[in-house]
Amino acid sequence: MIRFESDYLEGAHPKILEALQRTNFEQTPGYGTDVYCESARAKIRAEAGAPNAGVHFLSGGTQANLTACAAFLKPWQGAICADTGHIAVHESGSVEATGHKALTLPNTNGKIYARQIRAYCAAHYASDTQEHTVQPGMVYISQPTEYGTLYTLSELKEISAACREYGLKLFVDGARLIYALACAENDVTLSALAEYTDAFYIGGTKAGALLGEALVINDPALDKDFRYMLKQRGGMLAKGRLLGIQFDTLFTDGLYKEIGAHAIGLAGEIRDALIAKGVRFAVPSPTNQLFPVFDARVLKALSEKYSLSFWEDAGNGESVMRICTSWATRSEDVQSLIRDLNAVL
Amino acid sequence: MIRFESDYLEGAHPKILEALQRTNFEQTPGYGTDVYCESARAKIRAEAGAPNAGVHFLSGGTQANLTACAAFLKPWQGAICADTGHIAVHESGSVEATGHKALTLPNTNGKIYARQIRAYCAAHYASDTQEHTVQPGMVYISQPTEYGTLYTLSELKEISAACREYGLKLFVDGARLIYALACAENDVTLSALAEYTDAFYIGGTKAGALLGEALVINDPALDKDFRYMLKQRGGMLAKGRLLGIQFDTLFTDGLYKEIGAHAIGLAGEIRDALIAKGVRFAVPSPTNQLFPVFDARVLKALSEKYSLSFWEDAGNGESVMRICTSWATRSEDVQSLIRDLNAVL
Amino acid sequence: MIRFESDYLEGAHPKILEALQRTNFEQTPGYGTDVYCESARAKIRAEAGAPNAGVHFLSGGTQANLTACAAFLKPWQGAICADTGHIAVHESGSVEATGHKALTLPNTNGKIYARQIRAYCAAHYASDTQEHTVQPGMVYISQPTEYGTLYTLSELKEISAACREYGLKLFVDGARLIYALACAENDVTLSALAEYTDAFYIGGTKAGALLGEALVINDPALDKDFRYMLKQRGGMLAKGRLLGIQFDTLFTDGLYKEIGAHAIGLAGEIRDALIAKGVRFAVPSPTNQLFPVFDARVLKALSEKYSLSFWEDAGNGESVMRICTSWATRSEDVQSLIRDLNAVL
Amino acid sequence: MIRFESDYLEGAHPKILEALQRTNFEQTPGYGTDVYCESARAKIRAEAGAPNAGVHFLSGGTQANLTACAAFLKPWQGAICADTGHIAVHESGSVEATGHKALTLPNTNGKIYARQIRAYCAAHYASDTQEHTVQPGMVYISQPTEYGTLYTLSELKEISAACREYGLKLFVDGARLIYALACAENDVTLSALAEYTDAFYIGGTKAGALLGEALVINDPALDKDFRYMLKQRGGMLAKGRLLGIQFDTLFTDGLYKEIGAHAIGLAGEIRDALIAKGVRFAVPSPTNQLFPVFDARVLKALSEKYSLSFWEDAGNGESVMRICTSWATRSEDVQSLIRDLNAVL
Repeated sequence: MIRFESDYLEGAHPKILEALQRTNFEQTPGYGTDVYCESARAKIRAEAGAPNAGVHFLSGGTQANLTACAAFLKPWQGAICADTGHIAVHESGSVEATGHKALTLPNTNGKIYARQIRAYCAAHYASDTQEHTVQPGMVYISQPTEYGTLYTLSELKEISAACREYGLKLFVDGARLIYALACAENDVTLSALAEYTDAFYIGGTKAGALLGEALVINDPALDKDFRYMLKQRGGMLAKGRLLGIQFDTLFTDGLYKEIGAHAIGLAGEIRDALIAKGVRFAVPSPTNQLFPVFDARVLKALSEKYSLSFWEDAGNGESVMRICTSWATRSEDVQSLIRDLNAVL
Repeated sequence: MIRFESDYLEGAHPKILEALQRTNFEQTPGYGTDVYCESARAKIRAEAGAPNAGVHFLSGGTQANLTACAAFLKPWQGAICADTGHIAVHESGSVEATGHKALTLPNTNGKIYARQIRAYCAAHYASDTQEHTVQPGMVYISQPTEYGTLYTLSELKEISAACREYGLKLFVDGARLIYALACAENDVTLSALAEYTDAFYIGGTKAGALLGEALVINDPALDKDFRYMLKQRGGMLAKGRLLGIQFDTLFTDGLYKEIGAHAIGLAGEIRDALIAKGVRFAVPSPTNQLFPVFDARVLKALSEKYSLSFWEDAGNGESVMRICTSWATRSEDVQSLIRDLNAVL
Repeated sequence: MIRFESDYLEGAHPKILEALQRTNFEQTPGYGTDVYCESARAKIRAEAGAPNAGVHFLSGGTQANLTACAAFLKPWQGAICADTGHIAVHESGSVEATGHKALTLPNTNGKIYARQIRAYCAAHYASDTQEHTVQPGMVYISQPTEYGTLYTLSELKEISAACREYGLKLFVDGARLIYALACAENDVTLSALAEYTDAFYIGGTKAGALLGEALVINDPALDKDFRYMLKQRGGMLAKGRLLGIQFDTLFTDGLYKEIGAHAIGLAGEIRDALIAKGVRFAVPSPTNQLFPVFDARVLKALSEKYSLSFWEDAGNGESVMRICTSWATRSEDVQSLIRDLNAVL
Repeated sequence: MIRFESDYLEGAHPKILEALQRTNFEQTPGYGTDVYCESARAKIRAEAGAPNAGVHFLSGGTQANLTACAAFLKPWQGAICADTGHIAVHESGSVEATGHKALTLPNTNGKIYARQIRAYCAAHYASDTQEHTVQPGMVYISQPTEYGTLYTLSELKEISAACREYGLKLFVDGARLIYALACAENDVTLSALAEYTDAFYIGGTKAGALLGEALVINDPALDKDFRYMLKQRGGMLAKGRLLGIQFDTLFTDGLYKEIGAHAIGLAGEIRDALIAKGVRFAVPSPTNQLFPVFDARVLKALSEKYSLSFWEDAGNGESVMRICTSWATRSEDVQSLIRDLNAVL
């Protein structure tokens, strides 16, 4: 069985295992204060052109999202997000468990727009019983989105401007950020994220690390005391070096770019093959997740050899499926898939 | 600098890195549903003689404690614990952040006793305004304790009986459990924990894993739906295999016992050397943490070559220090420390 | 200015003030343990044919809703409700602040149906990653709804059946329940609520009391220890008698029915007058809240003498307005409104 | 039975019932925006010499404490308080239920001192693992304390200074404040509270109101958006006027002072009689709560006619009892108690 169902199917990029092996018997202080964490922080700050940003390492995306929401929001505030936002649908109510409501706006291919945010806030503050409803305190977006689509720089700037107008923090979930960064279509750089958001994170789990996300906090007021939250929410690893070594490796000699380019290249080959065959996509995603619509016959034919991920029902006996590539996807498996797709389509 | 300050200074036991390497390119489903997690679960159940227990893997001790407290307690209940209990003092209010109070009892060398628990509960239920105070809902103890001491089987049974009398869950923090299990003095086996507690965990982080704790839930009512809590609190890793592979390795061919014996043996050598020199201990701990009292002259002499952990002021210019051994402690380093201790004492 | 904008504009029914006056210097124990609370409890139990139900008095609707949700839900569960449900929109995220998500379903005139609940739960439990989403643990409905509409007994029974199928608690917000009970259209009696729900409350604030809601808990497992929650969430009044005396009065000699009949009668007169003039209603509500659609000219004409409540924009320069009657509405004011409506329409 | 067990045994001061009666049929907007709330706010601000303070009305003490803690603390902060502080012991974990830990310091007759606060904070910030423990964010004290004792102005100023040094909010629970204000020994005026604290409240429940506490927020940053919290935590009454009218009455023509003087005068008569007989007090309290130590014989003799409150065991077969006076205590009952005390002692 060749699996394309997600981008977290394998262990870690060999260079990461190598680094863990190499440093294994060094003795380092705990809780993210070791030299590898420091080195990784310095490299991330340099890459993002944000010399003063706080950089914290967390074990996973839900952990990062819930800790950020808990830390950044006031107790009467909620987080505006797309109704497809990961925090709204796929984190078991983790944000609510920190006491905050996810304030959902209708998505367009996984995205929300500045005008929606402005309209929501304007309506909130126009009400003379505004305190009976949750005050918007943050905008949460994902880059790429849960549907693999990308915000443009101009969209991000507009959202950022809307946030500043209404006193909202802007927080970007970058669980798959390195795949966004590797897209030709993308014009939102790490520097742009550092400039236009209050905080964002760079996912490691789906990008070749065993686990881990690097949270970059651009607003010093939000960064102050954040380590208390890290510890309180269970996100501070005793052996923090495990995360430091991995991000240090990802940010050495452009490894994260290489990984991104690899996955995006292979996704492109599959996308082109599907387009050539006239396959419809539920969402036009330029990143490492593809959402083709297949009928039962195609699914059956593929299912003997490939594992894809069922995304949602598309009606008429058709299904939206998800195909992912990653740092670990092998070119020969992609070629095999394309051959078999061509045969069955 | 040779570090004895904690038991999480290095990476992982070589067999664990080896296993990660060996399995690296296998494709497995996520979130703890892979074969390695299943295998580790089976081995832990077998070792604990608890074929029906739920076994869940979490990233760290604070994560395990907060998730268990959040899951097991009713919203109006608190957790009885020693005033030295880790959840009461060193987890940044993580349990309170889940809405529950830590109900502290005075410790004796890190331990609390059944009679204290009974007295507390009796007083609570004797009050006609009991609902104005937090209802005790759980007893939290650590084995070994934060001071390296051990509960005896008879003490554990008594606590368990007290818990059943008052409807309390019994939860055991086993962050350093493998070191307890390796002590000659210990009579609390994994089976005993499975029999007399509602849940306990076996720490990996301090026992040769990169990270991870294996939570064993003996009460099926508490186990049901626990995976929701794992996810909600950020404790469910996408690449759950990372934890599964590590615990599978620790529980293969008795590796966890070997690790425990190694550390306990070396701790014993240091303890004997200190005793021979008439050094006083703040707490008489039979496990891998020693708490000798040193004066400034000794500390100064050691500080050039060794890093110990300052525990607390002992008055009269003396300090309680913590010396830890672990899976990674080298015999030659222990011999060196003993030589230097003998020279300076 | 004659105000029809809400049903909590005045103080309390004269009989309630009289009872407060009469009992003022009696000395009673606190926290709801006094004879008036006991008497009120007995009368409510008798009226609902529920001799074993727990009855608790709380200060207001949000307080009642948040305390019930916090007490009844497990930490990984959410409350299914209409997207117009009061807890979802007008309580400042109070339910989320207790850690639980409001799981909204599309409303039909403020109502949701058993089939929607079943579909939601079926989809939840069909997912093999169900633990990544919030487990439904309760259904919250309002009787009458926030739009003044009524569930029929048959609809309630169906919802109750769906709840039992999926292990959901059924909780009914009855902030305006006495107005439902007074409607000719209504076939959901107090006994039916006691039989088919796990808990419901009878609002006092909008029904002639100064403040207060009487929560009836039919499920003994939910009632046990509920007083801890009352206290913990700030809902237990030191002078609990204040609530006891009021509900005792409301449930003496059918006062609550008299109040209900009064308000429903007057609402009927206004409704008939509007219908006679061909006024459209946003929602066809048989209770004490009417939602007529008026244009700007009508609104202007009325605004000199009457205060109505703006509900929402109806497009085309029209507005949905809310007109409420209550225990305190005077017949002469209603006649005056009708006269003026007839003149302007 | 004549009851001295608490100061919330009766209904309300007659002038308050009178005011409720007088205003009963006036129509006012809800949620604390009516003219009576505004008038009460203005009078409280004037009395406290704090023209810009925010004034909010809540239903009770626990409600006020939990809402203030939830609103004022950052999520990683706790509230320093005496180990006898009401939030630490008698509110069912309400503060923990908002996610915050009560950080208790040993009390002296119910009080804590600036030097304790400084020592606690200094130790916290001296630790290089400070983020593993709860950050102190607030000091909570009660005036009078739970033991009826008083902070002096000089002690309050010192505490205030300590708070400013360590970035702590200072919050004063004034559930019985009017009784403190009426004591000859007291030099902490409302103006002093406005000057030296961030927020404090003036209790109504124990001071002649049916219910209600008036929270005065001196720090504009804390006052901003506080109404969201009021609503979210269930503390905002629909008929907010109920609280406004009561506080307006208490602050008209010095009624609160009259009530305070009445209770303090009667408490003084009882205290003098007890002292004359050589009765020992557990705590030397100058306010309306007395804590005499009685043996079983005395208790038995009194119990036929009087209800006192058992406070705690005093050893040797003796008990600490609580005797309270209030706005409602009758002079003839006090004389009767004194006569009977003289007879039995």
